[in-house]
Amino acid sequence: MLEAEDLDRLRAIVGPERLSTGESELELHSRDESHHPPSRPEAVVWPRSAEEISAILKLANSRKIPVTPWAGGTSLEGNPIPVRGGLVLDMRLMDRVLWIRPEDLQVRVEAGLDFVRLNERLERYGLFFPPDPGAVATIGGMVANDAKGIRAMKYGSTGDHVLGLEVVLPTGEIVELGSRAWRSSSGYDLKRLFIGSEGTLAVITEVTLGLSGLPAEFLAAVVSFASLAEAARAVAELVGAGLVPAALEFMDEETVALINKFNKLGLPERPTLFLEFQGSSRAALEDDLQLVRQICAGAHRLETGLGREERDRLWEARHLIHDTIRKAFPKVAGIVVDVAVPLSRYPELVEYAKWALQEHGLKGYLFGHAGLGGLHAELLYHPGEGDELDRAEAANAAIVHRALELGGTATGEHGVGLGKRRFMEREHGPSLELMRKIKALLDPNGIMNPGKVL
Amino acid sequence: MLEAEDLDRLRAIVGPERLSTGESELELHSRDESHHPPSRPEAVVWPRSAEEISAILKLANSRKIPVTPWAGGTSLEGNPIPVRGGLVLDMRLMDRVLWIRPEDLQVRVEAGLDFVRLNERLERYGLFFPPDPGAVATIGGMVANDAKGIRAMKYGSTGDHVLGLEVVLPTGEIVELGSRAWRSSSGYDLKRLFIGSEGTLAVITEVTLGLSGLPAEFLAAVVSFASLAEAARAVAELVGAGLVPAALEFMDEETVALINKFNKLGLPERPTLFLEFQGSSRAALEDDLQLVRQICAGAHRLETGLGREERDRLWEARHLIHDTIRKAFPKVAGIVVDVAVPLSRYPELVEYAKWALQEHGLKGYLFGHAGLGGLHAELLYHPGEGDELDRAEAANAAIVHRALELGGTATGEHGVGLGKRRFMEREHGPSLELMRKIKALLDPNGIMNPGKVL
Repeated sequence: MLEAEDLDRLRAIVGPERLSTGESELELHSRDESHHPPSRPEAVVWPRSAEEISAILKLANSRKIPVTPWAGGTSLEGNPIPVRGGLVLDMRLMDRVLWIRPEDLQVRVEAGLDFVRLNERLERYGLFFPPDPGAVATIGGMVANDAKGIRAMKYGSTGDHVLGLEVVLPTGEIVELGSRAWRSSSGYDLKRLFIGSEGTLAVITEVTLGLSGLPAEFLAAVVSFASLAEAARAVAELVGAGLVPAALEFMDEETVALINKFNKLGLPERPTLFLEFQGSSRAALEDDLQLVRQICAGAHRLETGLGREERDRLWEARHLIHDTIRKAFPKVAGIVVDVAVPLSRYPELVEYAKWALQEHGLKGYLFGHAGLGGLHAELLYHPGEGDELDRAEAANAAIVHRALELGGTATGEHGVGLGKRRFMEREHGPSLELMRKIKALLDPNGIMNPGKVL
Repeated sequence: MLEAEDLDRLRAIVGPERLSTGESELELHSRDESHHPPSRPEAVVWPRSAEEISAILKLANSRKIPVTPWAGGTSLEGNPIPVRGGLVLDMRLMDRVLWIRPEDLQVRVEAGLDFVRLNERLERYGLFFPPDPGAVATIGGMVANDAKGIRAMKYGSTGDHVLGLEVVLPTGEIVELGSRAWRSSSGYDLKRLFIGSEGTLAVITEVTLGLSGLPAEFLAAVVSFASLAEAARAVAELVGAGLVPAALEFMDEETVALINKFNKLGLPERPTLFLEFQGSSRAALEDDLQLVRQICAGAHRLETGLGREERDRLWEARHLIHDTIRKAFPKVAGIVVDVAVPLSRYPELVEYAKWALQEHGLKGYLFGHAGLGGLHAELLYHPGEGDELDRAEAANAAIVHRALELGGTATGEHGVGLGKRRFMEREHGPSLELMRKIKALLDPNGIMNPGKVL
């Protein structure tokens, strides 16, 4: 519990205008975009520097006050919901670009900057930060979750772009990790301990990112298949053939029908793959597309040569699947399944997910970053009505267990948060104990985002 | 000190034929390929399974016996030299390919397999494991060092290919990390803690690797420059232009002269860049090469369109630089500098290294994986004669400090071992203390490869 004295001391650190205990702010910081029940913090603080965060954490650590870093609030597993109350550190005032070194393909940013604004700033240099999780996430949140999104197949995850990190440990110590070298073998790679740690080990305050050149050329294709199985098999064949598309996305026929309706796309309402190839050479992309045509020769329809406008509309529609479902069913909530398996098992996973929906009598949509074996299923339920939520939870658990049986992971990109904790023992076995020891080492009082991941 | 009773217990674990205290074996396990002074272990054991290693570590941990895992012995910073004696675990009997799943682009191997033999096994599937450090290193050694080599620019480091690891902790616990999914956000990425830990935290026993398709096409180019500065500047320009060669190697004129002489290459004896582009599309590679021609228009000579044989000879010569120096100067030893900096600072680094050679009155050769900002300098000295070794050490330290000032790292790929420990405080600052805490957490008795890294 935060005492009045704690609040006074916090106000002394950040000034009274950057601390709130108001109902509306507590409410805004009680929920992310997931189905997990909201839980309010006792106060929200908006720090402006690592030094302020250091002072806050020293106080919180000595008083054993829970501290949950808050980024864009766009997560899908309850990752930043302050389930034990305490303090939320809203990072969004720390949104500066600290430097851009185009000649090194590097940028240094504060953690609260969102990636869309970062990419706007980078465009004039012909550079970009490729990970794109869809929602307008902050760089800090993306690092904390090792966010991936549609372009990870070609460009890697958020963590793969992190050259350096500044973090504030629960003791208040400010630590710099990594360097500006693109590769290093210098000691333990501690950066990677914090990447994907979901705010349970430290607060990420600054990030040095390695960038990519904006591709000069792109080619997109849409392939519609007669059956789910054929679409899923094509994924494994395309990747097995050595193709590295910038994006390779799967959608089932219900998802295509939905985005057709809301975006007037006129796609055949069949299991579908969206592909995009990016590079500096048009000829190379044409070669890639030729290989796609060969592999997908038996598909229901194969459309290539999309113009930029048509391609942008497709990707926007893909990005907005989650929002479109919300719009289509305003009284309905959804659990977003997020698993990944080795590619050869992708057909089994997709068919199992489809079966699980039917088996549990649920309406749902299947889609995902197929090129990395990723599958999402958005399982709909009417909150408070009957046992629909229980059935959706059961279907989610069944799909996760199937993914683990197939050699995969309980969470491809959304993180563990609240929703995937119950699968950690099954996925990690004895190494979970090692994670617990590391948590206890870095955060002995358990103040950092308690109740998450472990 | 190993007691007779310890040896009996070890023999009971592995059988008498897989333990040696013979002079020649102790001598063979006393040195790597570096200039660091040899130090013998008290016994060498050749385990065949994680279970045997578990039993050995339990014994060693209870008796506080130093244990140093031994891989290919090809390291360049004294990484596996058993400076505190004790036991060496020679991993080279654990060299099986456990499975190949070509449809998933994955392979599982025991740690003692070398990457050359692995790639021979993979060739029939059209797949390969790209990292190539030059020497015939084992997969376990490459993971322990996060080895990079000439192809890391396009394909990433060894660690970037690791999907899963089996490790044996000093307690004897056998732990599996990661999964077969290509991407995951499931808890802390503990794999990365062991990748690059140089045997100081655990013994790596099995590795699941993600593979790449063998490129159908390659194009190589050799560019000779009028000056060192021009060659170094071209590196930054080539990478800044968005080119991602499979390899982009730098050599100074002395190095070119040396490999010319021993390999009859007939290259202009000037600062030189070797480039290779790989991919599925010939047209794309031609486009890349066209861009190289534009950027290097002012070069002394630019040779493209090398045939496979000529290209293979070039790469072999590049790989053998270290051995060629040994052959050219049989009575001379060398310190191999290994640093990396952001690309825009590469010209400064190269010129500084050249200056440091002159300043310290040393003969030496400069070369390196320029595309990632990596520079090696092989500094020659006559062992036991005058202060040449001291001067070589001083030049090495000066180059490392300059690399750190330029935002780089003390070791791009050879690891910390013995040679880079003294720079860790300067490079890592407070995060070094965090590394020490993690070491103490995982290896409280300090038995794993003591005296290294930290």
